[in-house]
Amino acid sequence: MHAITIEEPGGPEALVWAEVPDPAPAEGEVLVEVAASAVNRADILQRQGFYDPPPGTSRYPGLECSGRVAAVGPGVSGWAVGDEVCALLSGGGYAEKVVVPAGQLLPVPKGVGLVEAAALPEVVCTVWSNVFMIAHLRPGETLLVHGGSSGIGTMAIQLAKAVGAKVAVTAGTREKLDRCAELGADILVNYKEQDFVEEVGKATDGAGADVILDNMGAKYLDRNVRALAVNGRLAIIGMQGGVKGELNIATLLNKRAAVSATSLRARPLTEKTAIVAAVREHVWPLLDGGHVRPVVDREVPMREAAAAHRIVEESAHVGKVLLVTA
Amino acid sequence: MHAITIEEPGGPEALVWAEVPDPAPAEGEVLVEVAASAVNRADILQRQGFYDPPPGTSRYPGLECSGRVAAVGPGVSGWAVGDEVCALLSGGGYAEKVVVPAGQLLPVPKGVGLVEAAALPEVVCTVWSNVFMIAHLRPGETLLVHGGSSGIGTMAIQLAKAVGAKVAVTAGTREKLDRCAELGADILVNYKEQDFVEEVGKATDGAGADVILDNMGAKYLDRNVRALAVNGRLAIIGMQGGVKGELNIATLLNKRAAVSATSLRARPLTEKTAIVAAVREHVWPLLDGGHVRPVVDREVPMREAAAAHRIVEESAHVGKVLLVTA
Repeated sequence: MHAITIEEPGGPEALVWAEVPDPAPAEGEVLVEVAASAVNRADILQRQGFYDPPPGTSRYPGLECSGRVAAVGPGVSGWAVGDEVCALLSGGGYAEKVVVPAGQLLPVPKGVGLVEAAALPEVVCTVWSNVFMIAHLRPGETLLVHGGSSGIGTMAIQLAKAVGAKVAVTAGTREKLDRCAELGADILVNYKEQDFVEEVGKATDGAGADVILDNMGAKYLDRNVRALAVNGRLAIIGMQGGVKGELNIATLLNKRAAVSATSLRARPLTEKTAIVAAVREHVWPLLDGGHVRPVVDREVPMREAAAAHRIVEESAHVGKVLLVTA
Repeated sequence: MHAITIEEPGGPEALVWAEVPDPAPAEGEVLVEVAASAVNRADILQRQGFYDPPPGTSRYPGLECSGRVAAVGPGVSGWAVGDEVCALLSGGGYAEKVVVPAGQLLPVPKGVGLVEAAALPEVVCTVWSNVFMIAHLRPGETLLVHGGSSGIGTMAIQLAKAVGAKVAVTAGTREKLDRCAELGADILVNYKEQDFVEEVGKATDGAGADVILDNMGAKYLDRNVRALAVNGRLAIIGMQGGVKGELNIATLLNKRAAVSATSLRARPLTEKTAIVAAVREHVWPLLDGGHVRPVVDREVPMREAAAAHRIVEESAHVGKVLLVTA
């Protein structure tokens, strides 16, 4: 088969489409013939040499895919050759074939195309595990999503609206904010022109955000804590704005608030399986019913992964950039 | 009646035993004839002028008491004149009488003396709400308690052991650590001579603490995050070591860990009522059965509250310092 390999960490040109050995499914695993994968920021860090795959996982990038089951390993039930699936991966999605623990597979939802389904696993699992399983967003509460037009952002808006929450987003252009509004966002903040603490405060009668989903880390830490409501929960899933930030514990304590930080990739199989099961129970019906949709910016041939990385690095996209094998 | 009044914030001498008007119970409240109150660090901050009582609450210090029901306000059921009770207060415990919302009353547990029961409400509610309701300590997990010999610490050790957790404590003297060991603590760290991150790591095969109950705030923030296990939860309930600390978000994220900060006093009545109800359901049977005991350092006449404050400020005590009216 072919896969995108990284011989030397570096710029997008480090991504090379090369002939590599086929993988084979072990006990509890399924072999998927990949229709599409999607670009995640973690792939860019991996390409740059800053984010090595966890031990025992594929060396190729790619944290999610869609495709057809090509073989089923020993001890797997519930999946058969030919099934259309998408999957949460620990790596290896940028390839024509990938092996996946059976617990990380999901069926392609009704009304979602096979390629399009590659846009779902990472964003749905990240949003569900953070906003709902960790931060317990409830109907009537306000969720603030930074980077509202990203893959994560577009899914967070839709899921929060689906459960009856109010949604505030930040983004850097009018066009991106308009797309967020189309998906249901109620409060639109252009972070280049406005202060999100102030805007979220104004839009919530001074209450603040009950839950914040943050990809900026240190740069936004103090402002995020200030933007939280009483009993608020800040869920950090990225550190695009740095690693070490000052935490005002008095503000946090006066609000009886909490800060969590997670990544999906490093979680052990049991936790990933639990998240995928929860997602299948709670989010898949919303997808099957057409209430929530994958948001795809564009499809790029997988062999041109370098071009896809350039698009994501420029942040010119809305939703997911897919890599298609065909 | 008499109460401890604070005419001008300052040292212990600011606490003056004076004649004041009797309070009367309003709708939903109960009047308690106070047998004892207990000294909390928040009382010291209030005496110093750093921690004003929430609006609508008694101006006298005292966040807990025990005593007998002297009158029952309109709309209260389940309590009668003469009942022996203890209570979580928003203030006013340093007095001969205090009014309490009925939802913050608890019966004196079997086998616990009326005076001794004043040692329970604040520590039981603080430990239960933080370690169990927020941080969800589970059997087999490790709890690290800073200030293991404090009122909070001595209760946290006992409750954690009662649910089958392993307990690590920090304290500043051999004697205090010995008392913690008698209460069940498994891992003893003298913070003046040892590094708690290292000691907790060694004692848990490198895993770290699943839950940390912290009263130090900024000073311990970075070390606490380093001492956490994967999926660890840091619950901050005090800021004796300062307000602003550097949070290493990468460490937190790699551990998929969380930091919460709360105070009990500022919580609205509904939340206090819920905590008191949970405590009555989960902790009172342990007290009634003698599995968990209040730890009392000494009893001081309430009119000599200044002396009691000096004892607590010197941190020479183990457990609670009580103020008795009789």
